[in-house]
Order: sequence, then structure tokens, then C-alpha cells
Amino acid sequence: MNIERIGVLTGGGDAPGLNAVIRAIVMAANKHGMEVMGIKRGWAGLLDGGEVELLTVDDVEDIHRTGGTILRTSRTNPEKHPNGMEQIKKNLEKYHIDALIAIGGDDTLGVAQKLLRDGIKVVGVPKTIDNDLCGTDYTFGFDTAINIATEAIDRLHTTAKSHDRVLVVEIMGRYAGWLAMNAGMAGGAHVILVPEEKFDPDEVANIVKKRREAGLNYTIIAVSEGAVPTDAREFITQDDKVDEFGHVKLGGIAKRLAKVIEKKTGQESRSVVLGHVQRGGAPSAFDRVLGARLGIKVVNLILEGKFGQMPSLRGTCIGSVPIEDAIGKLKLVDKSFLEEMKIFAGR
Amino acid sequence: MNIERIGVLTGGGDAPGLNAVIRAIVMAANKHGMEVMGIKRGWAGLLDGGEVELLTVDDVEDIHRTGGTILRTSRTNPEKHPNGMEQIKKNLEKYHIDALIAIGGDDTLGVAQKLLRDGIKVVGVPKTIDNDLCGTDYTFGFDTAINIATEAIDRLHTTAKSHDRVLVVEIMGRYAGWLAMNAGMAGGAHVILVPEEKFDPDEVANIVKKRREAGLNYTIIAVSEGAVPTDAREFITQDDKVDEFGHVKLGGIAKRLAKVIEKKTGQESRSVVLGHVQRGGAPSAFDRVLGARLGIKVVNLILEGKFGQMPSLRGTCIGSVPIEDAIGKLKLVDKSFLEEMKIFAGR
Amino acid sequence: MNIERIGVLTGGGDAPGLNAVIRAIVMAANKHGMEVMGIKRGWAGLLDGGEVELLTVDDVEDIHRTGGTILRTSRTNPEKHPNGMEQIKKNLEKYHIDALIAIGGDDTLGVAQKLLRDGIKVVGVPKTIDNDLCGTDYTFGFDTAINIATEAIDRLHTTAKSHDRVLVVEIMGRYAGWLAMNAGMAGGAHVILVPEEKFDPDEVANIVKKRREAGLNYTIIAVSEGAVPTDAREFITQDDKVDEFGHVKLGGIAKRLAKVIEKKTGQESRSVVLGHVQRGGAPSAFDRVLGARLGIKVVNLILEGKFGQMPSLRGTCIGSVPIEDAIGKLKLVDKSFLEEMKIFAGR
Amino acid sequence: MNIERIGVLTGGGDAPGLNAVIRAIVMAANKHGMEVMGIKRGWAGLLDGGEVELLTVDDVEDIHRTGGTILRTSRTNPEKHPNGMEQIKKNLEKYHIDALIAIGGDDTLGVAQKLLRDGIKVVGVPKTIDNDLCGTDYTFGFDTAINIATEAIDRLHTTAKSHDRVLVVEIMGRYAGWLAMNAGMAGGAHVILVPEEKFDPDEVANIVKKRREAGLNYTIIAVSEGAVPTDAREFITQDDKVDEFGHVKLGGIAKRLAKVIEKKTGQESRSVVLGHVQRGGAPSAFDRVLGARLGIKVVNLILEGKFGQMPSLRGTCIGSVPIEDAIGKLKLVDKSFLEEMKIFAGR
Repeated sequence: MNIERIGVLTGGGDAPGLNAVIRAIVMAANKHGMEVMGIKRGWAGLLDGGEVELLTVDDVEDIHRTGGTILRTSRTNPEKHPNGMEQIKKNLEKYHIDALIAIGGDDTLGVAQKLLRDGIKVVGVPKTIDNDLCGTDYTFGFDTAINIATEAIDRLHTTAKSHDRVLVVEIMGRYAGWLAMNAGMAGGAHVILVPEEKFDPDEVANIVKKRREAGLNYTIIAVSEGAVPTDAREFITQDDKVDEFGHVKLGGIAKRLAKVIEKKTGQESRSVVLGHVQRGGAPSAFDRVLGARLGIKVVNLILEGKFGQMPSLRGTCIGSVPIEDAIGKLKLVDKSFLEEMKIFAGR
Repeated sequence: MNIERIGVLTGGGDAPGLNAVIRAIVMAANKHGMEVMGIKRGWAGLLDGGEVELLTVDDVEDIHRTGGTILRTSRTNPEKHPNGMEQIKKNLEKYHIDALIAIGGDDTLGVAQKLLRDGIKVVGVPKTIDNDLCGTDYTFGFDTAINIATEAIDRLHTTAKSHDRVLVVEIMGRYAGWLAMNAGMAGGAHVILVPEEKFDPDEVANIVKKRREAGLNYTIIAVSEGAVPTDAREFITQDDKVDEFGHVKLGGIAKRLAKVIEKKTGQESRSVVLGHVQRGGAPSAFDRVLGARLGIKVVNLILEGKFGQMPSLRGTCIGSVPIEDAIGKLKLVDKSFLEEMKIFAGR
Repeated sequence: MNIERIGVLTGGGDAPGLNAVIRAIVMAANKHGMEVMGIKRGWAGLLDGGEVELLTVDDVEDIHRTGGTILRTSRTNPEKHPNGMEQIKKNLEKYHIDALIAIGGDDTLGVAQKLLRDGIKVVGVPKTIDNDLCGTDYTFGFDTAINIATEAIDRLHTTAKSHDRVLVVEIMGRYAGWLAMNAGMAGGAHVILVPEEKFDPDEVANIVKKRREAGLNYTIIAVSEGAVPTDAREFITQDDKVDEFGHVKLGGIAKRLAKVIEKKTGQESRSVVLGHVQRGGAPSAFDRVLGARLGIKVVNLILEGKFGQMPSLRGTCIGSVPIEDAIGKLKLVDKSFLEEMKIFAGR
Repeated sequence: MNIERIGVLTGGGDAPGLNAVIRAIVMAANKHGMEVMGIKRGWAGLLDGGEVELLTVDDVEDIHRTGGTILRTSRTNPEKHPNGMEQIKKNLEKYHIDALIAIGGDDTLGVAQKLLRDGIKVVGVPKTIDNDLCGTDYTFGFDTAINIATEAIDRLHTTAKSHDRVLVVEIMGRYAGWLAMNAGMAGGAHVILVPEEKFDPDEVANIVKKRREAGLNYTIIAVSEGAVPTDAREFITQDDKVDEFGHVKLGGIAKRLAKVIEKKTGQESRSVVLGHVQRGGAPSAFDRVLGARLGIKVVNLILEGKFGQMPSLRGTCIGSVPIEDAIGKLKLVDKSFLEEMKIFAGR
């Protein structure tokens, strides 16, 4: 059977570069005589009656320059909907979609993998702003996020220096510290704390003190949102709610750490949470190129009948790997990179 | 008496452009055969033994490109120190400082004004990132802060749109809404809330609903940190502490507003606090030029013996006004500007 | 007669902020119950059959973030077309346009002024990226262009310094030096040459030499495209074509100046022409706000029947002035600003 | 013999990220108890008496944020100086430099390789803004240059569109088209011309015409400075000088191409040469991280006695390769990448 019509959807959190992928898919598919249907709001757009519309070259003309996804996104998991997977298959048929491109992270690709087993012609495009997905060197959106966080750290430097302060900046990264490591190193943070390695607040305080002794009255600490202290007791406040197991969810690590450091060092300490700003806006050149190349490649995978695969970046080359090799695992920052960073700490 | 040596200090919060002022002062003073002494950490550097060092043209070579202040800053008020004002005068004498340039906001210039009355040759340079100082059209740092906040709003747009969300972004401005007004208008916020006018959360919720009815599933709300609702009751949470008068300090307005809006509209709502990122980093071209021109002018004021004055911007011209005309008053966003904004709200 | 339908056109060179003006016009007009017709390609869109289309709020949703003009532009002067002015009036009637907004510089506003005399209800919006228009403090596009040129100068600094070079950078400004003055001052150029004052190449060379003697092996020279040497003979090359009057058009002043300086100082000298890059792309926050406010105001001018007027910026306030006061004159950089700059030259 | 003192020099054209390398070298070497001597102006600083100074951690505190090289650079080749190689060895001895780090491209590393053969303990760090060096995925400076060129193309888009123009933008890359390929793809150029493949101007003109027929009245062409037409005759002008072999050096390809395209299509065509702006200024986050990691690694190579090696990037890992494997070869854009681009051309 010939592929005449491709469906494309984006799932999970948005990442700069998504539109570059969509644009390349539409342009490449059109060159090869295939139509592209845009599915709205991730898997949600294939439930119920479906939210599906034709995407033309005109629709995608200049979208590679903007963040977000013109298809919009959701975290909807069809497996949690009664008859969800069936509805998806029905809607794919209803809209005459011969092959489906699922752009997303672990969750989105997980559903794609299940549809594949049911005989649907699915290919994937890996997406995670945290860069913690296996099977590819870099994911798009990651470079843009690093640049945004680096610029923020640059800005904080001049303020910290002028006011003799410790500034703790909280960066995305729940399970992996790629963003904090890279932005911290690029921005010249003096301490970087990541989920891969529990941190000792006393060691951090000592770096602050040591810098002060060397006449450096300021310190920048970059901390992943998922970083955890070796001993959480000092980080818990009276206002924290304890769950039924006596556990406290340590949200807002930057704010807590700033307080702990101020107490331990006597130095004025403040925190900044970069938040949603990190994932929006115009993608960097790297992310646009990566997005474009993945988009072209994924259309080629369809043409070659390589279903169940997703494009991946290796060095400067775009190859492909099976979707199932990428999901369910976490790519963590390796020990040696964590070690490298230490030469910048505490002088 | 001839002026042979000028002292310069920076007080209060840092603002991009401070270094451009310092650089221009050093270069202009040197051209006119005067030396410049850099006083460290605001008024604090004139207490005790003093922290004062010669500033040469080499010291300031490229500093106009960086934020913060190479002289560092503090909020130290000498009037609150025993014998503070006396120590200052003694140290000015000790370091042979014939004339003093105080760069700062209301507090810093207030101390300058008092020294003037005691016969010290003082001139000022107005500084506030909030732009709420009378006597000048714009203050440096303000344009940079607007650009940073605008870029953040641009970024939030693509995320809000992709996820069908309301995003509330908190922008500096405790007493005046200049920053939120300008960044909100530049960034295309749909609602802007400022301290000048109490806001009705129901009206805000209605704009969100009206947009949704028009098919626009996202809304960006720019809110000054000092904005206040007409009725604060909905904004108070169980965790808030009540003071002895039964009052609650409404910090974190963005987070509170996001919760109120989500409750009223049923639409997913999130908040972002830009925080310290707004005041640091490389100054915009406007702020560098403004800083340079103020620095040149303040040296001219000294040469012309116009003590008690500070340079000010009027249109494209640099003039001067008495320091006392500028302090103790707040320049608020005028009603007509607030009205203008409303054409962008709720379509 | 009630105004029910407004026409809007953009003429002359594009300037960042044009789309912010158009967006604000559409939103403000719609709030007041008026329709807006977009006229394509300046006056050209009102010749022949006319190129005119309805502009809705949806059409302008996010356009304030992009440079250029969605209406496109041209330098077409209807007076040079046979029956041009008549065709324009006929087409305004054909499309039931009750009032016309002409956004443009000297030429565009000149035509507007003539239509006004013929009884057409015209208002203007001043536009020139060079900021050389009388009647307003700043024109939109100017701030963006300064920022672009400043960033370029910042970049050139590090290269000039690393390679011990003189770098001459050519900046827009045929008749007025506003852009070179501001970008040069913001970027820390050591010499700034503008059309307002002929320059002596020997003086420039002396600054380069003096810097070198002070151990500064690099110099940045910012030059307006319209700057002219006191004596042009050294700037003419063998390849230049001489016109019938024996004159040479001195295009490419940066390249010529670099050669002259290299010859006079023996120091490696290179040139960069910023060119079209200066006028495109995303507008700065200042230009977006200025554009938005002018757009709102110009609709108010129509509502108030103030035809023949254009909005203008004075300090932080938007007022209005007669179009005829603005055209036919050139706003030049004042002498005192030119003097200020000299403290940065040659140390 | 123990390494107690390392010398470091930078040669050839500057590239953003050089200072990040230098900073990391100093910090890493200090951590390991070694001193670092900064050699000025590349190999030139080791000729004659030598220009060599101690580099401390304070000297490199914040330099990773600035472009260029604090050590300055030159294209001096000691082999072309009488006794040059001998002087270098003598000066290395004079300054007690036990091991030498040469940061540079083909030429600089070529000299390093020769010193190695003479028994000098040399390691290298690869540097080329064009990314055309073998042995490593990416070189620092390249990502920054792409971002600058991409931003320029973004800006040109809005102008081209508003004025119905063809804009030809000339991008660095004498022998390899990496920069034009990446910036062109990221910026959404419609045609990309690189040295790897001769281009047919008629084909380019056809794309312009085809776009116009599709209602797209503008076209952006990204061209490497080293791109060559299949037939150069149309590109030669009367003013070109012919050398003794009857050859013309085709400098300024963008300007020439714009003229050819305008003639072939009748559409207004302009050119922009990005020039030196592409290589200066603040490095991107990617380049700062890459620089820092290479700097750390090269110190490790010294500690491990791996002379004759240079660090290289493979995926996200820093490894090392022999210097001799990297020099004398050119890494070109592969055919498949060139093919990918074609889906964006001419719709």
C-alpha cells in the first residue's frame, strides 16, 4: 500500500524546534507527493470525533522561527481513556491517515510503540527539552533552553557582584541535570547541583566561604529543580505539609537552598526560578536545524517503510534508532562531565 | 576653590547603565584635568575608615557593556549610623574629595541633599529601574528591564498558546507600573495590572472567558509586583500569616492571581516571577547612551558650579533639575496611558 | 459624516514597529466600531484598480513582534503617475474609505498633505529609521536599528582587539547622524563620523596613533553612510567613475576610509557595512510600544476630526502636530551632542 | 620530568569560545599545581625576546563571556622567519615552559606538529569558525557564528517580504559551506550555495521565478563566500582586473550574484556581506561549554603525557585524537546534508 497521507501530532511539554520539525515534514512530504494532516493537541486530537486538519506549505511558511507548536499539545494518554486506543485507530481510519508521526517524549512515544504493535504505521520524533532521552546525542529545544538559562545567569552575575550576594538559580531538569550542567558551565556558575548526585549543603556553604576569603563576595549556584540534598532536614520549613508517610515534597529547591546557605554563611542569599520562560520563544539556530533535519528524516523513514523507528542525531549525522530503544530509560549526565565541572567550583 | 578631585558612589539597587555613567564621569573628568575617586558600596564606603580608590581611564575601558556597578552598592543609610553624617564629611576630607557625585534613587539622593545643606559640593545622577522618579523622562536601566521582560512575555506566548493556558507574569514595580505597562504592551499581554489602579479579579476572569469564546484558548497577564486587587479576600490562603492587626502581606501576587483565575475560569493557569533577572546583565543601547550622556553632563554641572543639581533627560536633550525637585515624589503612570492599554484587552 | 471605514498604508523603507502601528490601528478602530482596510504596497495599492483588503483583529493578532510591514511597501509616488492623484481619490471612493492613515516619511506624508488639500480626510504616522524627522522626539525603528548596530560594534570590538586592527563600521544615515552617534556611543566606538560635520582624515588617523601610543592597538570607527571628508581627494580610487561635471559619487565610505587610515597609520584596517540587516527583524520593546501608542493615537485623531495631523512623541507623552510642520525639514544631531561624543575619542 | 609550567597561545583568526578555553586551562592547571604562561599574539610571541606573561585565576575570572582572545592572535608562521623554529625553542626554555598548548587551526597546529617532532611537549586545541577541521564534530565559535548569521537572515526576511525583493547574504566559508548550510537552514533561506557544489545561476533564477508565480514575491539566498558558479562569465564585470593567466578573482560573490539574478528575473535584488560581525562578540552557550571542556581536557592530556594529541568532541563526549590526523584535510559538508536542504528550495 502506498502512503498518500501522513498524520502528525505533538505531545507533552512544548520545546523550541517543534515548529521546525512540522514545517520540514510538510515540505518534505509535499515534495514526495504526500499530504500531511495536522492532529491537534497530541493524542487528544485523535479521541472522540478527532481534531484533524490539512497542513499546507503555506500554513508552515515561517513557523520555524517561533517556539511552541502550531498543532498545540496535551499530556492526554489515550490508554487512560475508555476505549482510547480503539478511538485512535478509528479516527486514523476516518481521516485516511496511512502513516502517523508522533513527536514527543517518553509518554508520547510509548503510545506510538503500542500502536505499532497493533499494526499502525508509526514513526516517532524524539522530543525532550531536558535532553534525557536515550538514542540521540541532543534533542531540540535543549540548546535554546541552555541559551536562555545562560543569559539569565550572566545577568545574575552582575547583580550578585554589585550587591555582594549569593544567588541561587533554579533550572529545569527533574531527573537529569543536563540543562543545569551546561547553562551553569556556560554562565560561569560557581556551584552546580544536579539530580544525578545528592549534594551536601555544608560543602556548598564552604565554597561560598572560601570564595569570600579570596575576596570574591558573591557566588552563583545553579541548581536543577530535581536536585536533592544528602540530608533534607534543614530544607524543611514549618509550613511544609507532611504526607501520610511522614514525607515532605521538597518543591522550590532554590528558595530553600538560599535560606540554608544564608544561615550557614551569614551572606545575603536570594533565589530565582526561571520557570516557563525556559521553554518558550524563538528557537536557537541549532534547534531549528536539528528540527528541520529530523523532520526531513522522519519522512524518509516513512518512504523507506521503516516504521517503529525515529530519527536520531549522532555527531553531525542524522541516523535512526528503534523507538523502543529510546523509551523507558533515562539518559543521565555522566560522571566524567560532573567531575569536569568541579574545577570551576570554589576556585 | 578649584575642583581637583571628584568622588563618585552608587547606592541602592543596581541598574544596567550604572557603569556607563561611571565610565563617562571618569573620561570627562580626566579630559578636564580632574581625578576621580571611586567610593565602594554606596554610602557605606564613606563610613569608618572609608573604602575609596582612584579610578583611571584604564579601569573603565570597556565597562559600559556590563550591568551592575563596578563600585558595588549598598542600601546603607548613614543617618541611621551613629555619627554617620560626620564620618562621611570627615572621609571626604581625608580623601581630598572636592566634589561628590551620588548616583542613586530617592534614598541616596536624599542623603546627598542633606550633605548639600551642610556645605558639601554634591551633584546627583538619578537612578531607578522602575522609572518612577520625577524630574526626568526616563531613567537608565528601565529600557533594559523592559526588553528583558518583553522577551520573557514573548517566550511565554508560545508556551501559553501551545498548552491552552493562562500565564501570569510578575514584573518589577512596587509603587509604579511603568515596567509592566511597557513590557506588557510590547509583549502583547492581554491584561496589564499595575499599582496605580486596583484590579477586579472578576473582570480579569471575564477577559479570559471572552477570549476563549473567541477561540483564543490562552491569555497572558502582566502584573506589577505591587498590583493590588479591589478585594483581597480571595487572594489569601490558609498558609498566610496574619499580623497583629489582622493584616496579611500579599507577596507573590502572580502566584495568587493564577490560582484565583484558574478557579474562576476553569482554565489551567500558571505563574512566572521574573525576579532578579530583570535588573542585571548587558544594558540596552538606549541605557548605555543615556548613562554616558548623564555622566558627561554631571561633570559639566560640577565645572559650572551647579551643586545640588542632577542631569535629566527631556526629549532628546540632557538638561538639569534641582535634586530636591526629584526626591520624595513618585512619578506614576498617567491615566491616559492606562486607558490606551485597554484596547488590547479581551479583544 | 461618520467615519465607518479607515484605510491604512505604509510607504517608503520598512522600519521595525510598522506592524505594531497597524495592529494598534485595527484594534483601536474595531473598539470604536470602525472597519480597517489594508492598502498594499504604499500609494501603489491605490493606483489602477487598487490593492485593498479588509484587515481583521485576527489578521494582526501577533504581528507586533515581527519587523517589516504586513501591508508591504513601495516608493511609488502617485504624482509621477499620469492621473495618479485622481486614481487615488477614485479608489478611496471605490473602497468606501472615509479616512486615510498614511504611515511614512517625508515622501509619503508629502502626498498625504496634498490629498488633504483636495479635501481627503487624511492623518499621518511619522516613520523614518534615521530619526531625522521633525515634530517628534523619536521615530519607531530607530531604537531597534541602534540596538542592532550597537551589538555589531560590540562584536567588532573583540575582533579588533584580538587582531590589533582598526575596524570601520558603516551605519545608516544619509543626511543625519543619529544612528551612528547613538550606536557609536553605546558600542564604545572611539571615533564617530556623521553627515552633520565634515571630518578630517588626518585627525582620525591621529586618534588611532594616539591610542596605539597608549598601548591600545585597536580602534573602532563608526561612520554614517552620508559622512563626508573635508577633502575627498584621498578617498577617490582609480576605479571610480567621474560624471560629466567631474564629480565622483563617494559610495562605500567605510571601505574608502579604512584604506586611507591604513595608509596614514600603517595599521591593518578593515571595514564592515551593516546594510539591510539594520532595518529588519523583531522590533525592540521601545519601538513596539511607540508603534502601539502612535497607532492608538492616530485613530483618536480621526475620531476627533483632527485631519492633517500626525501623532508625535514628546517625553513619555503622545501628542500631535500638523503633518506640514514635519515634512520638508531635516532634524539633525545638535552640536552639543556632537561635542559630548568627543570625550570618548582618543582617550 | 614533571610539568610545572604550561605555555598557551592562540593563532589564526579569532573565534568566540577562545577565552573559555584559556580560562578552563588556567583553572584546571592551577587545580593540579601547574602554572600557566600566556604567550601573546600566537607564534609571534615566541619569536625575538618573546612576549610571555603569567596568567592567574584572577586574570581569567569572567573572560568566558567575551569573544576574541585575551592573548591576542596573529597569523605569524615561525617557519617563514629566519631561525624562527630555533627562537621558539629557545624562548620556551627561557620562560621555563615545560609543555605548550597551541590553540589554532590548520596552520597553528601544523607548526605545533613540527615542534613535537623536535621533542617539544606540545598538545593542541582545534579551532576554526568554519567547522571544516577533521577529527572533531564541532569546533567552538561555529555555533555563535551560525546564530549571528541566522539572526541576520531572520532580519532580512521581513525586509525582503515588505519590499518584494531578492536578498543575497554572504556568509563566511571559503572552502566549506557549514556556516551557510546551517544558518541558511535555520534562517529559512530559500536557496543555499556552498563551495562543495558549483551552482547554476539559471537554476537559482528559476527558483526566484517559481516562488513569484506561487505569490511569494521575495527570496532569500544564502551564499558562502567561497561558492562558485558553474560558468563565471556572467559574474565578471568591466571593472574586474584580469591576472597574467587571464583569470579574475571572483571576490564579493553576493554582490555579483544579486546583479545576475536581478538581470535574469527582473526582480529587485540586493546583497549583504556579514563580514567580521560573524566572528566577534559574546560566545553562545554551546561554544562556551565546548571551550571549557576542551580546556579541561587538554590539561588532562598533558597530565597523562599524551603529547601530540588534541581534544575532540564526539557526540556529547570529549575524547582526543592525534593532531596529525586533523591537519591538512578539509571536512566538507556531506552530500546527504546538501540534498536535505533542497526540500526547502523553490517550494
